[in-house]
Amino acid sequence: MSGAFFGNTDALRERYNTITPEILAELKAAVGAKNVVAGDPDALESYASDEAGIMFTSMPDAVVKAENTEHVSAVMQLASKYKIPVTPRGAGSGLAGAAVPLCGGIVLSMEKMNRILEIDAINRVAVVEPGVVTNELCKAVAEHGFLYAGYPMSTETSFIAGNVATNAGGGKVIRYGNTRRHILGLEVVIPSGTVLNLGGRIRKDTWGYSLMQLIIGSEGTLGVVTKVIVNLEPKPGKTVNLLAAFPDLDSAVDSVAKVIRTGIPVISCELLDKISVNITTKHVNTPLPYQDKADAFLLIQIEGDSEERLEDGYEKVGNLCLQNGALEVFVAESRTESTAIWNIRQNLAEAMRAYDPYCSLSGDMVVPLSAVPEMVEEIRKAAKERGIAVGILGHIADGNLHPIIFKPESMEPMEWAEYAETFYDDLTSVALRLGGVGSGEHGIGYVKMPIFLHSKTDEELEIMRGIKRSFDPQGILNPGKLLGN
Amino acid sequence: MSGAFFGNTDALRERYNTITPEILAELKAAVGAKNVVAGDPDALESYASDEAGIMFTSMPDAVVKAENTEHVSAVMQLASKYKIPVTPRGAGSGLAGAAVPLCGGIVLSMEKMNRILEIDAINRVAVVEPGVVTNELCKAVAEHGFLYAGYPMSTETSFIAGNVATNAGGGKVIRYGNTRRHILGLEVVIPSGTVLNLGGRIRKDTWGYSLMQLIIGSEGTLGVVTKVIVNLEPKPGKTVNLLAAFPDLDSAVDSVAKVIRTGIPVISCELLDKISVNITTKHVNTPLPYQDKADAFLLIQIEGDSEERLEDGYEKVGNLCLQNGALEVFVAESRTESTAIWNIRQNLAEAMRAYDPYCSLSGDMVVPLSAVPEMVEEIRKAAKERGIAVGILGHIADGNLHPIIFKPESMEPMEWAEYAETFYDDLTSVALRLGGVGSGEHGIGYVKMPIFLHSKTDEELEIMRGIKRSFDPQGILNPGKLLGN
Repeated sequence: MSGAFFGNTDALRERYNTITPEILAELKAAVGAKNVVAGDPDALESYASDEAGIMFTSMPDAVVKAENTEHVSAVMQLASKYKIPVTPRGAGSGLAGAAVPLCGGIVLSMEKMNRILEIDAINRVAVVEPGVVTNELCKAVAEHGFLYAGYPMSTETSFIAGNVATNAGGGKVIRYGNTRRHILGLEVVIPSGTVLNLGGRIRKDTWGYSLMQLIIGSEGTLGVVTKVIVNLEPKPGKTVNLLAAFPDLDSAVDSVAKVIRTGIPVISCELLDKISVNITTKHVNTPLPYQDKADAFLLIQIEGDSEERLEDGYEKVGNLCLQNGALEVFVAESRTESTAIWNIRQNLAEAMRAYDPYCSLSGDMVVPLSAVPEMVEEIRKAAKERGIAVGILGHIADGNLHPIIFKPESMEPMEWAEYAETFYDDLTSVALRLGGVGSGEHGIGYVKMPIFLHSKTDEELEIMRGIKRSFDPQGILNPGKLLGN
Repeated sequence: MSGAFFGNTDALRERYNTITPEILAELKAAVGAKNVVAGDPDALESYASDEAGIMFTSMPDAVVKAENTEHVSAVMQLASKYKIPVTPRGAGSGLAGAAVPLCGGIVLSMEKMNRILEIDAINRVAVVEPGVVTNELCKAVAEHGFLYAGYPMSTETSFIAGNVATNAGGGKVIRYGNTRRHILGLEVVIPSGTVLNLGGRIRKDTWGYSLMQLIIGSEGTLGVVTKVIVNLEPKPGKTVNLLAAFPDLDSAVDSVAKVIRTGIPVISCELLDKISVNITTKHVNTPLPYQDKADAFLLIQIEGDSEERLEDGYEKVGNLCLQNGALEVFVAESRTESTAIWNIRQNLAEAMRAYDPYCSLSGDMVVPLSAVPEMVEEIRKAAKERGIAVGILGHIADGNLHPIIFKPESMEPMEWAEYAETFYDDLTSVALRLGGVGSGEHGIGYVKMPIFLHSKTDEELEIMRGIKRSFDPQGILNPGKLLGN
C-alpha cells in the first residue's frame, strides 16, 4: 500500500519558500551533514506519515536529526530566515497527523536526542531529552524506586516530548492524571531560535503566564521541546486486576462511578465492548470468559499497600460491580493471569489493524462520565445507520472513548478516509453537545482540524491565533495543524 | 493607620478615562443601582487594598457587586467602550496587591456571586460561582462524602476564583497539587464582554491551546472568572499529625526528602522556624515541647485507610525523622492534640501581624527541595546583614518558603515598605539562581512586578504581552499588575 495525501494544502504551501541547494548547504554546515537527510525518497518516506493512517502522507524535503538544543536552535533560525516550514517529530506514534510535514520543508526529528540526563532522587524528578521512549524512562526510574506516571498506551514507542505535545493520557489517568500533571519543567526552542527555560525542578510556580502549560498540548505549533523535567512518584504498592463482564454498557458505566467514589485507589478502568473483544481475543488466541453473553467488559486495576488492603479493595470493587448487574467478576491475582487480561487491551490496536488495515483509530472524544451511556448509544446508532462496524473501547473513568470503525469492503481507501472523518466529526459534534471535547489525548493535528475550528467561536480562535503569532509570527512551525495556519 | 500608596502610577492612569456621571448612570442602568457603590469614600475604602499591607492602597472610583455573569459582561462592555480600568476582586485576601485598583476605575467584586450551584456526584465535580468561600465549598462537599483538595491556608476567607487567579497552594500541595490540578472548567468573561466556556465536567482535554490553563494563575489580567467547575476527591482516610523538633534546618529538610520517598501518603509537611514558633506560641498561649532547644519544627500530616496503616505510617515517618537528627517526634493522635498543633500554623499570620502590624508576609519564593537549606541560609544571612528580624516558615516539601520580616522600630512605614520589597527582591534573585521562581502561590500582583519583569528575558515578556493583547487589546483589565502594561 503506498501513501497518498487526503486533502489539499497547495494554498498553504505557497506561503513558504522551498529548500534551495544553498539553504541545504547552510543547514548541513549548521548541524553536520550526517544529521541531514535530503534527496533520497526512500530515506525521506519514513518521515512522511505517522499513525494517523496511510491516507495522511506528505513528503518532507529534508529531515534533520538534531543531536542537541543548539542544532534545534540553528534549524529554527535558518527556517525563520528563509521562511521554510518545520515539522517537529517524535516517534511518529501520533494518531492525528501532527507529525506529517503537510507543506514539505524540514522534518525536525528528535530520535537522536534520547538520553536520560539525570534521575534526581531528592527533588523527585528526571531530566530527559525529548526523544526518550516513555517505557525506557519508566524502566530507568523504576530502578531507583520511582514511578513515572504520565504515560500513554503507546508507552513502548512514544517519545516523552510527543507525550508533552499531545498532553498524552493512557490507561492510568484516573489515578495519576494526564502528562500535564507530571511535567515540571521544559526547555523549548521557539521559532526565532531562542531557548526558553520554563518551570524547573519545582512543584509550584505562580510566576507569570504559564507558557509551560500553554506548550503542553500545543502539538508542536508553538515551540520545539528540547528538554523535559518530569515528576516522579513513589513506586505504587501491590496491584490486582479485575475483569468484570456486563450484559449492557449502562450498568458498566454506573459501576465505574460508584467504584471511583469509594476512594479505593483505582489505577486503571478500561472499557472494552463486544466487537473489540471478539476481534482481539481471536488475534491473541485467548478467549475471555462470558464473551458470548457480555456486551461490555471492564478491566479494573486497583492498588493496595498490603495483601490485606488489596483483598479488601478488590472485594469491595467486585461486589459493587455485581450489585450493579455484572454477570461475573474475575480477579487475576497472579502475574500470569494479569498479563493475560492486559494482553487483550495492549494488543487491541494491533488486532484491529490486522483485522482491517484501513480501520480508523482516530476517534478520541471525551464526555462527562454521566454522558458516556448516551455517547455510546449515539456511536452505535451512527454506525448502524451508515451500515459500518464499530468497536468501542475507552478510558471509561475519564469519559474518554475510542470508537474504532472498519472500512466496508466495497469502499475505496480514499473515499473511506473522507467518510471516516465525517463519521468522527459527527460524533465529535455529539460529544460537544454533551459537554465534552473532540480529543482527550490524541490531539487535533491535521485530522481533527476542520471539526475543531468549527467547534470554536471566532473570538476564541482569534485569541488562539494571537497566541500562535506571539510565538511564531511567520507561522513556520508545524503549519496546517491545530489552528490550520 | 491610614492607607497610602507606595509607588507611582500617574503615567499609567493617563491611558484611561475617568468615570463621568453619564458613564456611572449607564453602569447603574446595566447592573442595577443597588449593585453600584460610588461617591462614598467610606464605602469605597474597603475596596482600596488587599492583604499586601496598608502601604499598598489605591481608591477605586466605583465598585460593582455583580450578581451574575450578565452583569460582569455588561461591566466589561462598558469599560471597553469608555476605556475604564477594571480590577476584579475576590475576598481581598491576596498578598501581592493584585486586587488593588491602581488606576482607580471600577472594582468588580464577586462577593454576591457566592452560590454553590451543583454538587455532581457521578462526575465528581462541584459547579460554583466565583465568590464562594473556599471553606464553605469544603464543608458542602464533605456532606456528600467528597473532598475539595485545592485550598490555600486562607481557606476561611479566600474565594474560589481568587484561588484560580493565583493558582493558590496551601498546606496540602504535596499530596493534592495546587489549585490548577483541581480546576476542570471555567466560565470566563473577557474584556470584550464575551463569555468563554473552557473545559467542563471532563477530565481530559486536548482540544486546542489550553486557554483555561492560561487563565489559571493570570491574576485577573486576562479575563474575569464567573463560574468554576472543580474536581472532587474521595474523602481521605484517617489522618494523624506529627510534630518533629530538629536542632537545625538541614536535618529537617533531609528528613522531608526521605519521608516523601517512602510513598507513605503525606498530606502536609510544614516548616516552622524558631522565631515563627516563638511569636506564635506566645500569641496562642501554648508553648511547644523542645521549643528552647529546637531551631526548626516539622508539622507532618499523614493519611492511612486503617488504624493499622496509620500506625505503621507514623512509626516509619517518626523513625526517619529521628534517624535524621530530630530531637523528638510527637504524635498527636486525638483531635484535641492535632488541633493544638495545627493551631500554631493556622494562627501564624495573625500572630505575626499582632506582633508587628508592619511585618511583611509577601515572601513566597520556591526552590528545588535540594536547595532549601541554601535558600534558608541566604535568607538568614540577608536578614542578619541588614539587622532585621526574620521568621521562616513554608510548605517545605514543595520548596515553597515564606520568610516574614519585621519592621525595625526606627524605620518609617513608607521607607520600610520600600526596604522590605528590596529585601524580597534580593531573595528572589537568590531563588532564581537556585533554579526556583519568585512566587509559588501568592502571585506577582503589583508587589512583585518589578523583580518579575527583571527576571524574564525581553523575548519571553514579549510573548506574554502578545498573549495579554490577544485577550485584552486595550489593556483595561487589572492594569499595572503582573506585566505592568
